[in-house]
Amino acid sequence: MKIMTQYKDGNYAIEVARGILEDRIDDYTDKYDQVFYLADKNVYQLHKNGKLSFIEDPILMEQGEASKYFDAFSNLLETLLSSGVQRNCLLVVIGGGAAGDAGGFAAATVLRGVDYIHVPTTLLAHDSSIGGKTAINSRYGKNLIGAFHRPKGVIYDLDFLDTLPESEILSGFGEVIKHALLKDKDAVDALMDATKDGIELDVIEPFIIKGIETKMEHVLRDENESGIRKHLNLGHTLGHAIEYRYRMPHGIAVTLGIYAALYISNELNQEDTFDLAHFYEYFIGLGYPMEELKALDASDMISLMTKDKKNQTSGLVGYIVMEDAGRARFTEIDRQQLTKFINDMKESL
Amino acid sequence: MKIMTQYKDGNYAIEVARGILEDRIDDYTDKYDQVFYLADKNVYQLHKNGKLSFIEDPILMEQGEASKYFDAFSNLLETLLSSGVQRNCLLVVIGGGAAGDAGGFAAATVLRGVDYIHVPTTLLAHDSSIGGKTAINSRYGKNLIGAFHRPKGVIYDLDFLDTLPESEILSGFGEVIKHALLKDKDAVDALMDATKDGIELDVIEPFIIKGIETKMEHVLRDENESGIRKHLNLGHTLGHAIEYRYRMPHGIAVTLGIYAALYISNELNQEDTFDLAHFYEYFIGLGYPMEELKALDASDMISLMTKDKKNQTSGLVGYIVMEDAGRARFTEIDRQQLTKFINDMKESL
Ligand SMILES: NC(=O)c1ccc[n+]([C@@H]2O[C@H](COP(=O)([O-])OP(=O)(O)OC[C@H]3O[C@@H](n4cnc5c(N)ncnc54)[C@H](O)[C@@H]3O)[C@@H](O)[C@H]2O)c1
Ligand SMILES: NC(=O)c1ccc[n+]([C@@H]2O[C@H](COP(=O)([O-])OP(=O)(O)OC[C@H]3O[C@@H](n4cnc5c(N)ncnc54)[C@H](O)[C@@H]3O)[C@@H](O)[C@H]2O)c1
Repeated sequence: MKIMTQYKDGNYAIEVARGILEDRIDDYTDKYDQVFYLADKNVYQLHKNGKLSFIEDPILMEQGEASKYFDAFSNLLETLLSSGVQRNCLLVVIGGGAAGDAGGFAAATVLRGVDYIHVPTTLLAHDSSIGGKTAINSRYGKNLIGAFHRPKGVIYDLDFLDTLPESEILSGFGEVIKHALLKDKDAVDALMDATKDGIELDVIEPFIIKGIETKMEHVLRDENESGIRKHLNLGHTLGHAIEYRYRMPHGIAVTLGIYAALYISNELNQEDTFDLAHFYEYFIGLGYPMEELKALDASDMISLMTKDKKNQTSGLVGYIVMEDAGRARFTEIDRQQLTKFINDMKESL
Repeated sequence: MKIMTQYKDGNYAIEVARGILEDRIDDYTDKYDQVFYLADKNVYQLHKNGKLSFIEDPILMEQGEASKYFDAFSNLLETLLSSGVQRNCLLVVIGGGAAGDAGGFAAATVLRGVDYIHVPTTLLAHDSSIGGKTAINSRYGKNLIGAFHRPKGVIYDLDFLDTLPESEILSGFGEVIKHALLKDKDAVDALMDATKDGIELDVIEPFIIKGIETKMEHVLRDENESGIRKHLNLGHTLGHAIEYRYRMPHGIAVTLGIYAALYISNELNQEDTFDLAHFYEYFIGLGYPMEELKALDASDMISLMTKDKKNQTSGLVGYIVMEDAGRARFTEIDRQQLTKFINDMKESL
């Protein structure tokens, strides 16, 4: 499956299927005199005798989120520079969203910008590899330092997902659910039906592709994140606070956040737009730690949320809610009302 | 004097005159809810009771080049983030080329990019503040990490130059000379005539403005530095090597490099296009350490030059030479021939 971006210029292909890396990589690397492979340490370790055995001298990145701290990032840049990187080079970034973010930001800044492609290895990266955002973390929060820098291509070889731990599958799947919700009711029903007994990678493949398409639609229609791109934050407002406080994988926290957003949507819509019990059972069945929702301290969550860089109006908290599946909208909820929503939701569980 | 850039979009004004900062700054800051002043420590110290007394809580940057090292840069970002910087903010970067480069790169990357204006305080910054290049240094060389990020404006208040040390005047003036050479013979003659007895700031003001215009022309006609923008490297190929080896201010080394480029141009042109003796006397008269040229070790210089990131063909060294004033061209000179040129030039002095 090959999806092309539809920007005014600087378009690239996202190719998604099993076993495509070995076939497709040369088409990209052939165009450059110099190619550097930047790989998540963990991913390289797992695949160096298999899918990644063709790589001779990888530059290993700290695994996962650790690659996104300033020291790891500056080491990555210095390693690239000590290897004599030149402007006309290609960086091949292999790993999950974290490697993509740090490697992409390295590509954005080394020699004021060189080309890169991303080879995503996590389920979540179906999301993070689209949109051209790159970033590293600050002492004061995640993704606070970065750039917009589009890759020249994304080779999403689903074989990598076979080695992904269960918790990372759940994390990435949270974004698949989000994309279905942003798409329409049919997408949600089909996804929930196909996965009611668990997440089988081969079964969810079409949903991954649909997720990519949905993310791309949102990004393309709004490069500056003023309007519709914001909808991608569904589940993230509270999700980020949960992720921060309970240190759980991003997409798992987001899924809890999605549940809360559906609850709040029903309240604001003043009707049962979403069958909450059905969602709750479904999430529990897949293994999401929904019971954590009962433990939330509303005021703690809200103070974390309002430090979130995307919430800029004090007193009110920006929130993505759903008029229905496929019909998200941005709204601002008064802190007091939001406290009540969170507490009511806890009681309803 | 107000000069507008002529990009397809994202244009901005460069305003140049004495005493304009206080008048002009509000026009920029008024548009933002949040304004941060980032100032070179040294500059702030010198002007805090005068021109900069209106600033309440400046973020002080390490002075000059020190601000361009990774640690200083990450501290700058963390300070900004700890101050609660938001996307819709303006950074006002006050200082020379170094502050402009580091502060501009901070603006390029904090929250994936915020607005900034530059308030240049050195003579050299008439050059560095044009073109949208920002950068910091790596362990492996200068300006190896950065981004293209245009300011929203440049307020070049020449009053700052009054406190600039003599060596920094000479350094900045090197780029003024370069810009005259890239312009045409009349510009060179007028500049040399006006400054034959020394560099008076009020006399060179029109030449600063012409320099800005010349730099801008080169940048506008070639955003990607493949063609004519390269001409701005006149004097820089050897200049960078001299700067590195002898640790002298950038523009002073460039001036020595310019002399060498004129010498080599005469050789390649096989005629006395440039009156070398006249240039030599002129440079000596202004205080440039021309005698350092006699001490150059050609092979050391060439090996430094070929590590320069702008020289990508081994065996040959990329070089900007002049067919005449106003007619620069890029060429590649064989290492052996270049060695001979450098040695012959040393003997001619
Ligand atoms: N740029 C964007 O638009 C965007 C969007 C969403 C998320 N993100 C970022 O993505 C990051 C999260 O990405 P992620 O969930 O992919 O996590 P990750 O990249 O941190 O990877 C999670 C863990 O899985 C390991 N791993 C990766 N691939 C594996 C494989 N095939 N087999 C076994 N282990 C593997 C990693 O080593 C790591 O330990 C966050 O930093 C987040 O901020 C970015
Ligand atoms: N971005 C570009 O296109 C570009 C072009 C050329 C040079 N540069 C960069 O610019 C830097 C050199 O800039 P520079 O020559 O302006 O040097 P600088 O910014 O390092 O300043 C030189 C010294 O002068 C001091 N200073 C600055 N203003 C002063 C004032 N008004 N009074 C007294 N002291 C003052 C500084 O504290 C510093 O010690 C280099 O890092 C170079 O790489 C960038």
